[in-house]
Amino acid sequence: MSLVELTNGGPLAGKVRKLTILGATGSIGCSTLDVVAHQPDRFEVVALVGNRNVELLAEQAINCRAKVAVTADAGLYDALKEKLAGSGVEAAAGMGAVMEAARRPADIVVAAIVGAAGLKPTLAAAEQGTTIALANKECLVCAGEVFNSAMRKYGAQLLPVDSEHSAVFQVFEQKQRDQVDQIILTASGGPFRSATYEQLKEVTPEQALKHPNWDMGPKITIDSATLMNKGLELIEAYHLFPVEPGQLDAVIHPQSIVHSMVSYCDGSVLAQLGVPDMRTPIAYALAWPSRMPAPVERLDLAKIGQLTFEPIDSDKFPSVGLCLGCLETGGSATAVMNASNEVAVAEFLSDRIGFLGITELTREVLNEADAAGMLGNMTSLDEVSDADEFGRRKAGELAQRLQK
Amino acid sequence: MSLVELTNGGPLAGKVRKLTILGATGSIGCSTLDVVAHQPDRFEVVALVGNRNVELLAEQAINCRAKVAVTADAGLYDALKEKLAGSGVEAAAGMGAVMEAARRPADIVVAAIVGAAGLKPTLAAAEQGTTIALANKECLVCAGEVFNSAMRKYGAQLLPVDSEHSAVFQVFEQKQRDQVDQIILTASGGPFRSATYEQLKEVTPEQALKHPNWDMGPKITIDSATLMNKGLELIEAYHLFPVEPGQLDAVIHPQSIVHSMVSYCDGSVLAQLGVPDMRTPIAYALAWPSRMPAPVERLDLAKIGQLTFEPIDSDKFPSVGLCLGCLETGGSATAVMNASNEVAVAEFLSDRIGFLGITELTREVLNEADAAGMLGNMTSLDEVSDADEFGRRKAGELAQRLQK
Repeated sequence: MSLVELTNGGPLAGKVRKLTILGATGSIGCSTLDVVAHQPDRFEVVALVGNRNVELLAEQAINCRAKVAVTADAGLYDALKEKLAGSGVEAAAGMGAVMEAARRPADIVVAAIVGAAGLKPTLAAAEQGTTIALANKECLVCAGEVFNSAMRKYGAQLLPVDSEHSAVFQVFEQKQRDQVDQIILTASGGPFRSATYEQLKEVTPEQALKHPNWDMGPKITIDSATLMNKGLELIEAYHLFPVEPGQLDAVIHPQSIVHSMVSYCDGSVLAQLGVPDMRTPIAYALAWPSRMPAPVERLDLAKIGQLTFEPIDSDKFPSVGLCLGCLETGGSATAVMNASNEVAVAEFLSDRIGFLGITELTREVLNEADAAGMLGNMTSLDEVSDADEFGRRKAGELAQRLQK
Repeated sequence: MSLVELTNGGPLAGKVRKLTILGATGSIGCSTLDVVAHQPDRFEVVALVGNRNVELLAEQAINCRAKVAVTADAGLYDALKEKLAGSGVEAAAGMGAVMEAARRPADIVVAAIVGAAGLKPTLAAAEQGTTIALANKECLVCAGEVFNSAMRKYGAQLLPVDSEHSAVFQVFEQKQRDQVDQIILTASGGPFRSATYEQLKEVTPEQALKHPNWDMGPKITIDSATLMNKGLELIEAYHLFPVEPGQLDAVIHPQSIVHSMVSYCDGSVLAQLGVPDMRTPIAYALAWPSRMPAPVERLDLAKIGQLTFEPIDSDKFPSVGLCLGCLETGGSATAVMNASNEVAVAEFLSDRIGFLGITELTREVLNEADAAGMLGNMTSLDEVSDADEFGRRKAGELAQRLQK
């Protein structure tokens, strides 16, 4: 990545980096701590913020010698304090403590709290004008403009942690931004890549909860099966990189080795490849603008043998087009869409609507929002909440209609 | 490519670039002129240097409005002058005129004269401290240290034009040079990728002159069939990028879509992809550190479907290991090797030695050079010539032994 303003490795080069992790006990948090454990001299952990798994949180905090461990659940303060007794790690609990931890001076804050709950702590961390390694989708999908304008206001630097966006970031030449043709995200295609449209109608939650390459939670797994996950990532890419919606595309690549690509006006396509392991993009964000070793398997293409690519069938997987349409619409469309998708996924997981009904329901909510004049520009988090609430309420109502 | 010293596009940004092409009538020269013809406002052609094809040379010079057209053959002065009559393009001929043309002030000189003949004109161009887009292999393979030290002395900037080295250049982050694990060049594998060792013994010149992806001359085509071409490119990569011989590797990739890769300590592998078309790397070199449109087909991975990779069988293709061994040996080893390979290829094309004899002969010459104490360091072009001459002479002698 060409970053002319950061000569000689930037302001953090060679310095021990103060690190805070929001969402320490989740998948990204655990991977981050694993990366850091292999590079102990480079980092000093300030705060670990978790939710209800205080046992793991305390163990992590003791191992990495964090200054403070925070559970979002105020009721778990005593449990956490007890587990930290004698360790020298401070205990704290409740949302106020989460916000306070996010504001503690740090050189880099990993924002990995899942869902809408991650938005406010991430913005609190940004207020110190630090570097935010962003793993939370909602900050950009629901609140893209609002979030980015806050980042600019505070002078915070955003770095992507998603494997796809990290890949793009690694090969998106800032100085050649006017020469970029397209950002092309790769999608594994999920478990139903080869299914027919008719077969997709009959897909059960159990079938959909299988995913070939990454270990993820149920919501993201369903989003991967519908390719909504890729649509959401296209929305994130739009907010992370200086491109227009028409410059965003996705291609199916079942092996998940090519993590994404950027094409340029001279016919060059730059790509980042690697074994599917989140510790690579995490290490990249933590060491940026330099790099540092990550405890991951090395890519051996001769051993892998082949990489395959397929176009996305928009009949089977309309979610990608739906998301790009939301970007063209602008305003609150992506926030409404994201909220209704969450409801739709829950309805599907409870076996109340069919697999194809997920995107159908979401599209219908968007139509109603449009008809109701609800898709205007958003300039505050309150408006983001309103759009989110509208999407959820409308999706709940409409779910009745689609019920099996 | 991260080039901190060249902020805002570097000294040439937005400026019309004065361009000279050494080797205008060859494949690279023609492609360069095609690229330039599509971007006429960006370039002003100073000199076109060709060999004996004065008809094409004159046509090119008139079309691109060059200041001067030069044929290396002094005897063709009148023919060239006649063809240029009334065009306003100056005619010149002979080696002195070639050197004079190379020294004319230009912002970028494409050095595409094939073979050892390209060395002196390229060095003459470098004397003006300009940017050299290097397509000539011998400058680096035979005279790597001498050539690089001249580049440094004159303050000239070297840019690769080969598709493989351009690919590496595009994804080799200068600021992350200490974090580079490997440079991995891709090789099409040539026409005998799937042949057995026994079958290779029987290969005829006619069979070897077929090559699946690029349109090239006979010497390079044979080098592609033996994979010597890849070995030579590994030697060039060693001189172009700050790596050790042990960090260089190659992998077979028959589709020639991934043009080469750089792997980093965090598990990331960055690659440049594209349809096989020299106009992309040429456009990259001409527009660097920016980019400009090239008249090439766009890569559509979904349409291509699959990319395959295989390890290189060192029994069948010992040339790659031989070249890496020459880099480990250092000194004049690569110059001796290159010269004896040229003789060996000619012997094979004349059907006097077998296909496997090409590398065998070359290896034997190296052994004799080593035994004769001929593989020392070289600090001048005279020493490069001596090494070259030794390799040719010895190869000629040894060829007798191996004759069928």
